[in-house]
Amino acid sequence: MSEAEFPHDDEAISLTGKLATFTDLWSPKIVSRFNGLDVMVVKCKGAFNWHAHPDTDDFFFVLRGTLRIELRDRMVEVGPNQLFVVPKGVEHRTVADEEVHLLLIEPAGTPNTGDVRTATTKVAI
Amino acid sequence: MSEAEFPHDDEAISLTGKLATFTDLWSPKIVSRFNGLDVMVVKCKGAFNWHAHPDTDDFFFVLRGTLRIELRDRMVEVGPNQLFVVPKGVEHRTVADEEVHLLLIEPAGTPNTGDVRTATTKVAI
Repeated sequence: MSEAEFPHDDEAISLTGKLATFTDLWSPKIVSRFNGLDVMVVKCKGAFNWHAHPDTDDFFFVLRGTLRIELRDRMVEVGPNQLFVVPKGVEHRTVADEEVHLLLIEPAGTPNTGDVRTATTKVAI
Repeated sequence: MSEAEFPHDDEAISLTGKLATFTDLWSPKIVSRFNGLDVMVVKCKGAFNWHAHPDTDDFFFVLRGTLRIELRDRMVEVGPNQLFVVPKGVEHRTVADEEVHLLLIEPAGTPNTGDVRTATTKVAI
């Protein structure tokens, strides 16, 4: 969807409300857009594949649960109301032992696997 | 602070923890940065002045309380876990009857009054 086609917010966007509308995992849903960035919510459980985004930092904000972000040299735990930015080009994978709900912000059209296209690659819809 | 000087996150950033470190109002504090954008938290109470940002959309995410965003033709109430994007160039003012805590994301160096420099103009530090 091009920037021109994406409507401005008519009213406040409830992340809790949007999260209640779907159950699929690792499938980001766009809730708003600003400055050419997609604002998305996603539900995760289990481990994602290792990947890096060559052209963009990766913004994670945890709404519910605890996300473990594994980097090649260390691991970062991100709990509710916490955020973490993975710098562009840095390999990482995300692991959620229990279901985690996240707010993600990325340039429109960024595949969530970065430069590695796999069966789990999804572009937010 | 230039993008090069801003350190990457070493660990998860607790917004609640950052908010506990200050009491001043309408004075955004940078907690992280990604893709040249400042990620900030701010405490607000009362009414801010009318303004517009000519070059950037304005992203508001409410962590605590209820923010009223007044536009020239309508009003939007934004509660906890809700977000709203004011499109660039659109005049608005924010009003908080009780103290509100927000997550803001803006291009680095954006004055919070947009194009109107007043006594309340603050650039996040």
